Formats: sequence, C-alpha cells, structure tokens
Amino acid sequence: MKLTKAVITAASTDHRTLPIQTLVDRDGELRSVLEILLREVHSTGIEDVCLIIHPGDEDAFRKSITDTSMRLTFIEQHERFGYGHAISLAADFTAGEPFFHAVSDHLFISGDPERSCARQLIESAKAEDCAMSGVQSTHETEIQHYGTIAGTLQRAAGGESIYQIREVLEKPTPTEAEQKLIVPGLRAGRYLTLFGMHVLTPLVMEMLTAKVEETKRAGGTLQLSPILSELARREQYSALKVLGGRHDISQKYGLFHAQLALALAGSERDEILSDLLDIVARARH
Amino acid sequence: MKLTKAVITAASTDHRTLPIQTLVDRDGELRSVLEILLREVHSTGIEDVCLIIHPGDEDAFRKSITDTSMRLTFIEQHERFGYGHAISLAADFTAGEPFFHAVSDHLFISGDPERSCARQLIESAKAEDCAMSGVQSTHETEIQHYGTIAGTLQRAAGGESIYQIREVLEKPTPTEAEQKLIVPGLRAGRYLTLFGMHVLTPLVMEMLTAKVEETKRAGGTLQLSPILSELARREQYSALKVLGGRHDISQKYGLFHAQLALALAGSERDEILSDLLDIVARARH
Repeated sequence: MKLTKAVITAASTDHRTLPIQTLVDRDGELRSVLEILLREVHSTGIEDVCLIIHPGDEDAFRKSITDTSMRLTFIEQHERFGYGHAISLAADFTAGEPFFHAVSDHLFISGDPERSCARQLIESAKAEDCAMSGVQSTHETEIQHYGTIAGTLQRAAGGESIYQIREVLEKPTPTEAEQKLIVPGLRAGRYLTLFGMHVLTPLVMEMLTAKVEETKRAGGTLQLSPILSELARREQYSALKVLGGRHDISQKYGLFHAQLALALAGSERDEILSDLLDIVARARH
Repeated sequence: MKLTKAVITAASTDHRTLPIQTLVDRDGELRSVLEILLREVHSTGIEDVCLIIHPGDEDAFRKSITDTSMRLTFIEQHERFGYGHAISLAADFTAGEPFFHAVSDHLFISGDPERSCARQLIESAKAEDCAMSGVQSTHETEIQHYGTIAGTLQRAAGGESIYQIREVLEKPTPTEAEQKLIVPGLRAGRYLTLFGMHVLTPLVMEMLTAKVEETKRAGGTLQLSPILSELARREQYSALKVLGGRHDISQKYGLFHAQLALALAGSERDEILSDLLDIVARARH
C-alpha cells in the first residue's frame, strides 16, 4: 500500500480556534495543536497534507505553524453537510489513492516513545494492506461520545491487537452496544471506540462522494460511521488497538487534561507533578 | 478621579497568539484570554478600551471576543521601542485623562469572588485619588521576573494594605532588592512586585510621550518602571496589595497553571481535583 497523503478535518464551526491553541508538547516545546498534529503526521513520512477548514481560517492556521517543510493544501468547506462531506472535499487531493485521515479536535499521545500513534496505525495498515482504523478500549459509560465498532480479534502479536471490523455504529446507547458491539476477549463493559485516525482506501472516498448529492437534496448530514460499516461489507477493513491515548480537546477542560497528559508522558513529568501538588496545596478552601 | 478608559498592551512579538488562547474561566465558560481580561475591565464599569497590538492582529483578536458591548480601539505598534512606547501610543485615546492599564500576558484571579482584581485597584485609586499600582508579596527568588517597589505602609484597613511608593526597580537582583527595596512589615525575604495592572495619571502619559523621541534616537527601549519611579518623585503614587493572584501565562506551562488556578478558584473545584488525581494515578511510570 502506497501512502503519501493525509487529510485533516478542521472545519467545525464550534471549534474554529481549537487548532491554534498552544500546548507544551512532550519535548517541552510550545506548539499549536495543529503543529503537534502535523508533526504526528510527518513522523510517518507523509509530507502532503490537505486541511479542510472553515472559510477564512487559512491565514490563522498558517500563522500557527512554524515548521514549513510539509506541503499543505487548504480547502474551505462552504456548505455544511457533516463530517463525511468535509472529508469528501479532499477527493481531488487524494486522487484515487489511499490516505491517512485524522480529526483535529483530538490530541494523540503514544504510549510508545519511539512510534507515534499515527505511525503505529500506518505500519499496521501497510502490513495488512487494507483500510484500518485506530481504536481504543472504552468503558460503556463513555461510548455514547464515539463511533464504536463490532468485530473479532484477527491477530495479536508483539503486544499489538488487530481486529476484523464487522460494523461501525456512531455514538451507540449502552443497549445497542450490548446487543451488537461486544468484542470477544475484551473485559466486561468495555468496547472498542474509534480513536480519531484512520487509513482509508479509495473506496471510502468513492462512497462518500457518491452520497454527497443525495445528502444535500435531503438536507441532512453525511457521517463517516455508516460509510465505514459499508466498507466493512465490501473490503477487508481492520482496526488497530493503538498503544496510547486520545484526548478530545473540544470538550470543556479538554485542553487542560491534554496538557496534563502530555506533560506526564514527557521528560518534565516530575517537575509538573511537583508543581501540581504545590498549586493544589496553596489553593484556598 | 474620573476613570472611564483602559489601555491594554498586547503587541509583544513573542506572544501574539496568547490573547486568543482559551481557558475555562471561573464561571465554567470557555473564553479567550483577551475576553477574560476585558470582562475583568468591564467589571469596574469601564467600557472604553484601547488595545495596543502587533500589526495585523486585530482580526484574530476581534474573532476571539463574543461579548461586543464594550467600545474597542485597536492601535498597531509599528515600531518596537519597548513596553513604555506601546503605552504611549494610546496618548490620543486617553486624551489627558487618568486611565486603567493592564498587560495581556497575565491572568488575574481575585481572592474576593465579589470584587475582581481590577475593581479592587480602581476603588482604592478613586478613594486615595492618586495613581496606584497593584502589587503582590513575592519571594526574593522570584523578583528578578518583575518590577519591584520600594515604599512604606500608608494605610491598612479592612484587610487592605496601601503603600506609599518611593521607587520602582525593573527586575532587581537579590542584592539590589536587599539594599533598596525592603518594605517594613513584610516577612523576611519578601518584596512587593508589580501585579501587571495600574491606575495611571495624565503625568505618566506625558512623561512617556516626552521620552519617545529620545528613545528612538538612542535606538533603545522605553520601559515603564523608570517612569513610575519618576512619578513617585512628582506625585502621590500608591500601591495596593491586591487580594488575589496573577499568573504570567507567557511562561512555559503558564496557561496550564493559570487554568488550574482558575478551576481551583471556581465552582468546579472538586470535579477538577478529582480529575487531577485520576489522571495522575493513570499516568505510566
């Protein structure tokens, strides 16, 4: 599988300033959320990135990036027909090739200092030569926030678990999950939810673009999860349980939690823990 | 003292995106650093605010503000002759009136839920009818980061301490501090450092504008501290020990520490403390 392109969605009207928020990354450098994500992509060898953005945001996003060695293509989403619609705008950019895709409102922190989350996923997708989504084991009380997969363990080796995906349900209820999404081998009450990064095949882009007109006529939104369910019926489609964590920074205190997790994963861990204790101790009661 | 205008300096080339960073404020609302500061100003009744900015930043700053009830004047600093030069650009705006001034790279958290730091300072300045700077008791190991005052206690009542300022030294060494800046009544090893907010009189603006041309010819920078020292020799000039804390968010992890302090000062304190313990406990060793 040849993989040279990445598509990042960053067009949500609710989170327009999210990619330009800054965090101290695990190297101890102050970087924008967008730059941290681009460095994650770059760590896989990909240098061609398409960003789907809200009209007018290109300038602010470009200002938030200091490393300019990657080729960036900005595409504005002028009509709002959902997440799947946003990805479909990159059809000319991906030009019939498989592509890496990540959302920009998550921060990914690898549990393996040598391999970023994106690199883990891309290496597995290349090894299996098929579409692959990152997933994470998630407690049932949290699954209503995420796309959640049904599937079976396909291969577990060297600490890596790869699952064959049968279906993807967007934000399931606990009842739906119990009926359809139990994955043999996981602990009770836990499910596999989408991590926010995928390696997608040309068929995904075909299915998305084929649905866009219909979605517009119906005035609805085009989501990614139903397309991924269809993908599972038509092609080999797998999931990698990524060694690491993803933090939804669009949530309240999301940036704060992400910063704490980054700091605790980095070289300044002890300094941060001591700062924390100090601030908590000094806080008024 | 009539006080209807505020001047905020936000033109530092190093921290251009700082005012548009977002934090969850103590009401639990996600707001930009700039909006939190403007709300602090608004809490005092001031509705006319002049922002000194880096050329080209007005658009991004305006986008980061949702409350538009204040009158905002943006002035671009095209030449870089220091902090005092930045303030002097607001001379036409202040038009010979006293004005409130705050820096935009600090977050101010009042220890009095009913009165913001700015309101404490402005009420004291009006009561004393003179220029007044907010100050904070600071350990000697930290004073090299701040302007530091020499002075004596003028009045202490109702938990408020007001000092008569004799001199202001920018970022003093511990030796300088010990020789010149000891304030009777403070604990050993502690000094009064500038808080980052002031009520300034027309004389300050006069002295600043008078120095600008000379500074430009010399190719140097015009600082505020020497002007404040001169102010102390020419007018009544006092300091209020503000009930609260200021956080320099331009420092590494500054936003993170400010967010933690905000959360611990707010209504979501217990939730945040429990989150913290949870994240720290789950962090890998």
